[in-house]
Amino acid sequence: MTIKEVLEHPEKVSFDVDRLGECAVDSPITGGRFVEDGDRTLFVHDADAVAEAMRAGRPVPSFEKAGPRRKIFFDPAWCRAAVVTCGGLCPGLNDVIKGVVQTLWFDYGVRHIFGIRYGLEGLIPSYRHEPVILTPEVVDEIDTIGGTILGSSRGGQPTDQIVRRLADMNINLLFCIGGDGTLRAARDIAAEVKKRGLAIAVVGIPKTIDNDLAFVGRSFGFETAVYATTDVITCAHMEAKGAWHGIGLVKLQGRDSGFIAAYASIANSCVNLCLVPEEPFTLEGEHGVLTALERRFGLGKSHAVIVVAEGAGQDLMAGEERRDASGNILKKDIGTFLKSAIEEHFKAKGEPITVKYFDPSYSIRSVAAHGADAIHCLMLAKNAVHAAMAGRTSCVVGKCADVYMHVPIALATIERQKIDPDGTLWQAVKDVTRQSEYMGYEPLVKG
Amino acid sequence: MTIKEVLEHPEKVSFDVDRLGECAVDSPITGGRFVEDGDRTLFVHDADAVAEAMRAGRPVPSFEKAGPRRKIFFDPAWCRAAVVTCGGLCPGLNDVIKGVVQTLWFDYGVRHIFGIRYGLEGLIPSYRHEPVILTPEVVDEIDTIGGTILGSSRGGQPTDQIVRRLADMNINLLFCIGGDGTLRAARDIAAEVKKRGLAIAVVGIPKTIDNDLAFVGRSFGFETAVYATTDVITCAHMEAKGAWHGIGLVKLQGRDSGFIAAYASIANSCVNLCLVPEEPFTLEGEHGVLTALERRFGLGKSHAVIVVAEGAGQDLMAGEERRDASGNILKKDIGTFLKSAIEEHFKAKGEPITVKYFDPSYSIRSVAAHGADAIHCLMLAKNAVHAAMAGRTSCVVGKCADVYMHVPIALATIERQKIDPDGTLWQAVKDVTRQSEYMGYEPLVKG
Amino acid sequence: MTIKEVLEHPEKVSFDVDRLGECAVDSPITGGRFVEDGDRTLFVHDADAVAEAMRAGRPVPSFEKAGPRRKIFFDPAWCRAAVVTCGGLCPGLNDVIKGVVQTLWFDYGVRHIFGIRYGLEGLIPSYRHEPVILTPEVVDEIDTIGGTILGSSRGGQPTDQIVRRLADMNINLLFCIGGDGTLRAARDIAAEVKKRGLAIAVVGIPKTIDNDLAFVGRSFGFETAVYATTDVITCAHMEAKGAWHGIGLVKLQGRDSGFIAAYASIANSCVNLCLVPEEPFTLEGEHGVLTALERRFGLGKSHAVIVVAEGAGQDLMAGEERRDASGNILKKDIGTFLKSAIEEHFKAKGEPITVKYFDPSYSIRSVAAHGADAIHCLMLAKNAVHAAMAGRTSCVVGKCADVYMHVPIALATIERQKIDPDGTLWQAVKDVTRQSEYMGYEPLVKG
Amino acid sequence: MTIKEVLEHPEKVSFDVDRLGECAVDSPITGGRFVEDGDRTLFVHDADAVAEAMRAGRPVPSFEKAGPRRKIFFDPAWCRAAVVTCGGLCPGLNDVIKGVVQTLWFDYGVRHIFGIRYGLEGLIPSYRHEPVILTPEVVDEIDTIGGTILGSSRGGQPTDQIVRRLADMNINLLFCIGGDGTLRAARDIAAEVKKRGLAIAVVGIPKTIDNDLAFVGRSFGFETAVYATTDVITCAHMEAKGAWHGIGLVKLQGRDSGFIAAYASIANSCVNLCLVPEEPFTLEGEHGVLTALERRFGLGKSHAVIVVAEGAGQDLMAGEERRDASGNILKKDIGTFLKSAIEEHFKAKGEPITVKYFDPSYSIRSVAAHGADAIHCLMLAKNAVHAAMAGRTSCVVGKCADVYMHVPIALATIERQKIDPDGTLWQAVKDVTRQSEYMGYEPLVKG
Repeated sequence: MTIKEVLEHPEKVSFDVDRLGECAVDSPITGGRFVEDGDRTLFVHDADAVAEAMRAGRPVPSFEKAGPRRKIFFDPAWCRAAVVTCGGLCPGLNDVIKGVVQTLWFDYGVRHIFGIRYGLEGLIPSYRHEPVILTPEVVDEIDTIGGTILGSSRGGQPTDQIVRRLADMNINLLFCIGGDGTLRAARDIAAEVKKRGLAIAVVGIPKTIDNDLAFVGRSFGFETAVYATTDVITCAHMEAKGAWHGIGLVKLQGRDSGFIAAYASIANSCVNLCLVPEEPFTLEGEHGVLTALERRFGLGKSHAVIVVAEGAGQDLMAGEERRDASGNILKKDIGTFLKSAIEEHFKAKGEPITVKYFDPSYSIRSVAAHGADAIHCLMLAKNAVHAAMAGRTSCVVGKCADVYMHVPIALATIERQKIDPDGTLWQAVKDVTRQSEYMGYEPLVKG
Repeated sequence: MTIKEVLEHPEKVSFDVDRLGECAVDSPITGGRFVEDGDRTLFVHDADAVAEAMRAGRPVPSFEKAGPRRKIFFDPAWCRAAVVTCGGLCPGLNDVIKGVVQTLWFDYGVRHIFGIRYGLEGLIPSYRHEPVILTPEVVDEIDTIGGTILGSSRGGQPTDQIVRRLADMNINLLFCIGGDGTLRAARDIAAEVKKRGLAIAVVGIPKTIDNDLAFVGRSFGFETAVYATTDVITCAHMEAKGAWHGIGLVKLQGRDSGFIAAYASIANSCVNLCLVPEEPFTLEGEHGVLTALERRFGLGKSHAVIVVAEGAGQDLMAGEERRDASGNILKKDIGTFLKSAIEEHFKAKGEPITVKYFDPSYSIRSVAAHGADAIHCLMLAKNAVHAAMAGRTSCVVGKCADVYMHVPIALATIERQKIDPDGTLWQAVKDVTRQSEYMGYEPLVKG
Repeated sequence: MTIKEVLEHPEKVSFDVDRLGECAVDSPITGGRFVEDGDRTLFVHDADAVAEAMRAGRPVPSFEKAGPRRKIFFDPAWCRAAVVTCGGLCPGLNDVIKGVVQTLWFDYGVRHIFGIRYGLEGLIPSYRHEPVILTPEVVDEIDTIGGTILGSSRGGQPTDQIVRRLADMNINLLFCIGGDGTLRAARDIAAEVKKRGLAIAVVGIPKTIDNDLAFVGRSFGFETAVYATTDVITCAHMEAKGAWHGIGLVKLQGRDSGFIAAYASIANSCVNLCLVPEEPFTLEGEHGVLTALERRFGLGKSHAVIVVAEGAGQDLMAGEERRDASGNILKKDIGTFLKSAIEEHFKAKGEPITVKYFDPSYSIRSVAAHGADAIHCLMLAKNAVHAAMAGRTSCVVGKCADVYMHVPIALATIERQKIDPDGTLWQAVKDVTRQSEYMGYEPLVKG
Repeated sequence: MTIKEVLEHPEKVSFDVDRLGECAVDSPITGGRFVEDGDRTLFVHDADAVAEAMRAGRPVPSFEKAGPRRKIFFDPAWCRAAVVTCGGLCPGLNDVIKGVVQTLWFDYGVRHIFGIRYGLEGLIPSYRHEPVILTPEVVDEIDTIGGTILGSSRGGQPTDQIVRRLADMNINLLFCIGGDGTLRAARDIAAEVKKRGLAIAVVGIPKTIDNDLAFVGRSFGFETAVYATTDVITCAHMEAKGAWHGIGLVKLQGRDSGFIAAYASIANSCVNLCLVPEEPFTLEGEHGVLTALERRFGLGKSHAVIVVAEGAGQDLMAGEERRDASGNILKKDIGTFLKSAIEEHFKAKGEPITVKYFDPSYSIRSVAAHGADAIHCLMLAKNAVHAAMAGRTSCVVGKCADVYMHVPIALATIERQKIDPDGTLWQAVKDVTRQSEYMGYEPLVKG
């Protein structure tokens, strides 16, 4: 099913997360406000559509609210937790690790917390990556550095081996921080746990720098990543302006969804052209990228800044499909392809240009999370712990209209969230860049 | 009325904004998606309360959606617009100015845009602050610097003089970027405009670094301000750790609402004590700040970091009430008061401590907006222009659940938005700082 | 004696450092280039003066070159080293600590290295600050954070107690990182060590953010501090421009020597007035600061940025002399004094101005060192270790014309280095700020 | 001749710069300290060598001091100046432009200053790049942004056309900011000017981010570039640590001289291997890079960070020699070559590794200069103007032992300055990285 179908027919899917069993243990938390059993929150994807559905008496999607429960499933005294980070780096990984450890330790009194090294590899004995013991002291200042103190890896590992290892280590709380591949693996682990009659809560904290997971709201690290594009786009601007008909070309993350490229293009208003996977384009022709550059230069502008998402324009390039260790299709390199195409085009025309190419992906994803984004990391971590302690499993924590909630992994991974080419985000990109004018879809306005 | 009363009895107030008259002019905008007349968006302050009200058939607050209209009130060819920035600096002022200018110019073809200098003073001829002509070229890169290129000032000016000046200049679109004082002035201007039978749209873009305006969502500049606290809080941490029983004390903005202090304390997890206006505290006694420091040192910690909002603890200090030019009560200086109180307390006890005091307010508010915050500035600016062109007046632009909307100034300034001491934000502050433990409200946990 | 006298009559002082005894142990260093015994380096304070002196056959000051020796005094296997940081924070403290530890460990194989906590207090048992064990692993990433991992304190401690403690701990290498007070204490320790016939090398790494020590060249942390002024001066500029006749007033370090203020005023060209201790000034009168502001505003400029060193203008303020724990005279607060004086002056004239005051000292000194400055920290640390291993004592490490050298503490603390009001540095300040014009010493030029 | 030969036989070359004629005009500068005719400064490349030469009565290299003269060659009222920036971007270009304009305007009263667009192209009419008029207002805040406001280009242009254009524009002061190619062009221009009997002073401000020009001291922008490497090397460190046997590989500037790579490797102590053009290396074999990585992993380290200068290891790669528009040999891409070689090596061994490759060159060179580096830019600019006004030509401004001086272009471009593999800089690199141990030149020490 697609996101759209789910929203139109919420009755066809389950919005409820799995539970390991009844919550019969008193929470050790004092002084906090508890979420009551049955508390749910509307999924307000579109406030008006929701209002209309309610007025019409149609079912409206809602999720269980996240937060601490009066009664929990696990006895904290017996709890042994494990945290694992998987896939590519993303700002905020250490914040999430720290939040999980602190909440387990201070809120629940859990004293056995293991950091699994190098992703799921760390749960496969043959890799010999010994887990590290995590305490509040160990994680005290890790939020000030980027990366993950646990290390990470790509790709899946045999579910049965993972579950056996968890059982051997007497883990009953597993926190998986990762993208859709990892979350699907977490779902498989939860299923195998259930099959074996074990009591291990498997809770994910969804990680996607592309912001492309469904039903979970803005992903952690995304805002910091957008923030981090400013330095490099400013440099691209300076390089572009430093040469006659200079072009600064910046490739940003965005395999299937161009959110970072779109946000970066609005936040850094020196961008003149933003290319994303959701909006196909050509090189040649009336609406092509090359023609757009000619139109801009024709206006008397002496430079141009282009931002392109890595997954954009894949149809323009020949070559076989390749996949990475996680099974993700390896995108063909649109950045160097565009660079060459632009250079050749203007060379053929006898018009000298200079293209300076930037590929800052690693630099953007390996910085520490800051500000509201760091807070989001913490809240996801805290609510993941509350969920796991209350026996929720095979789920992730998400956020909608400022409320944190439990989302089944099956829903979060049902389809990638994408930019709506008819929505306000893409309209804002077009307004700021004025690329519709350059691409010949609207008349040029002098400015 | 209070915010709470409005939400409980939405039928008692008007959620609709004033209009100058019928929209009979075709919009020059092509290719964009228009907002239809009558499009409204739910005000989802609390998704569940809304859902319950709807189920119960009770009225639910909703605002008119912001955005471009097919039919507009003003003929762009005759439009003359003015932009003014008032009150203290805030990140994003230049982004908003740029967004207003670009939208007027490129979307509507307005060619007469004036930048009013130094706040409302610039509309009073006796100050002799000549307006500047704003064009896309003038504003091209202003978003990369902090402050406001127009200058600002505090305090009101005679409404009749302002309106006469606007009439003399043939202005028909006035954009006021300012806080509640400015917005009330804007409302008075709009009222006087109406009384005189003029056709001048007065639209506000609400500015409050304290994030304390009602019904308008997160204020622009707030996230950047939170982000900007990291450097200074990190320095406070280093200074605190650099001395035996060193205390880093940081005063942040927050006259009546401690949002910046609260967010900064979560985002920078080295903070041990966060003091805000919404949560009274004492110095002495079992739950006092001084006792809290003793408890922390008693745990073997050798330093402490305290963040205090400027409006916190006002009841602890003697002295007369004073007001600034805008009529705001001048807060007594809780920062230096706390510094002295702590130093004297430990000196009297014969225990040497070192307090390093930081007052970074100006540094936090004068930086350029970045990332998602810069995008928010742009969207507010664009929608303010759309509102004014469609003849809306005496209103501001706000955002709820990702939808921009028109909010009457009367509602936005009805009461200050504050931190809910029982809500999740304050709970997160307490969890991260562990101040409830230090203050003796909860038992100490070793970590 | 003054620096000038020493330079003019180098024969009157000793440029040689004390030695504990003969170097009879083979250095374990392999593969490096050794400094030969007797290698000296000219002290090129003024290349031309030196050339002239040499031509005239007059004595020319020179110091022993720093660096590794073939033969050393201590047997590394028996070495026990201690590192202590004293006085106020300064960028690069952790770099120096790290450099000392790594050089001891990797170059000499020393395995017993103690970090003394909280300055000289850590060598007085009654304070109960236990030393920490330092290894390469402990110091691995400390250079990325500001402050000092050891903590610091102001003020002296009884020399005999310190030496007894060193003897009790079997320390034979003591590295003191501190300013002139600390260095004098180090000299006293070295003297007491000698008196008692002990073999403890006492080597200082001179720390002064004011860059005011003699004969040692640019002090570590100074360049980073200058670099760190940019953010705050930019903010002061924005605040100043944000108000009609707005004044951004920034107080920077500089008790007796205004180097940071001077460098910051050149490096940040928005500064219009730079006030330092070396160049007296008045408020009123033809050449006064207040008149200078009036002249600038009279030129049609709407704002001004002033940088003032904390030790400037002390003669303008009444009040008794006070001293800090280190015995330094506490400077009266020229920042708030100037702020009030300016405000009152213009208020009395009926001309509204706005002064925004910044006191960023703690923020500037608590950041991590970067770039060439970090390299300087490392080189000082390495050469201090080489010096101590070779039995040099009662000395510091300095740099002249890119060559590191051994300087007797007595010389380094003989007099504070100050800005020469007739030199090129101060000329550059005047050129960039154009303050001679504003202050009425030169005719105003329109620009 | 080589630098070494010049230093050993200073009598064989001229250290004096060309002059257009006698200085007969009174300088308009008041209140400054003048440099007297005949003032020279020793070139203290090595203080001890100089001292020895002086003692032995051998000739010692010295240059004419830079600075303002009482009598100048040009009458400022008739002066028309031009500034041009050539070659690749470098931090500080705008600082130099601003310094030149401000010194001409405020010190000398020159009112006709032209900014030549896009390098030497801007002096060839057929390119149609019109010059811009430069005033203090135009350049007021350009030092806060990177790049060059004038634009730049690579490659030479016909000298006769340039001189004709200068004559047509009545230019009598030409300031060329550029590298050795540009400086040689400047020398040719000066020669042609002389041949034609024109009175145009041609003064260079040497620009080389590689810091590889002779006799001119540290080049402007270099320190900022080193500073700017910290962010990217930190990211490389995080990426390396984020994967099992993760390798962060960073390519930095350094065509023939590896100064940036060397400085960056000391300033950022997470670097484990620094490869520069001056120190050849192999991939395979006992001392090879691949073996070094194996040794490091063998020590139990789970990651490695490598910094490589772009000109390093050129002998390892096959392929034809190519040149850029400036005639520089285009370096073969050692970065991607190393990446592949490492990946293939470990793949062949069946040991999984992950290489993350960073090529931040454009980002490092396009930032604004800061701190002491910004001051250096200003001082170079000021002294270049003083030199030109005094009729010096075919020369550049340099710095030695804190004294600015005039250097003939012929000397500055005589040979590239390089890292001395036996000197203290390279020793420091080896000490910090411990690469001699990893490369098998020294025994491994555990740390």
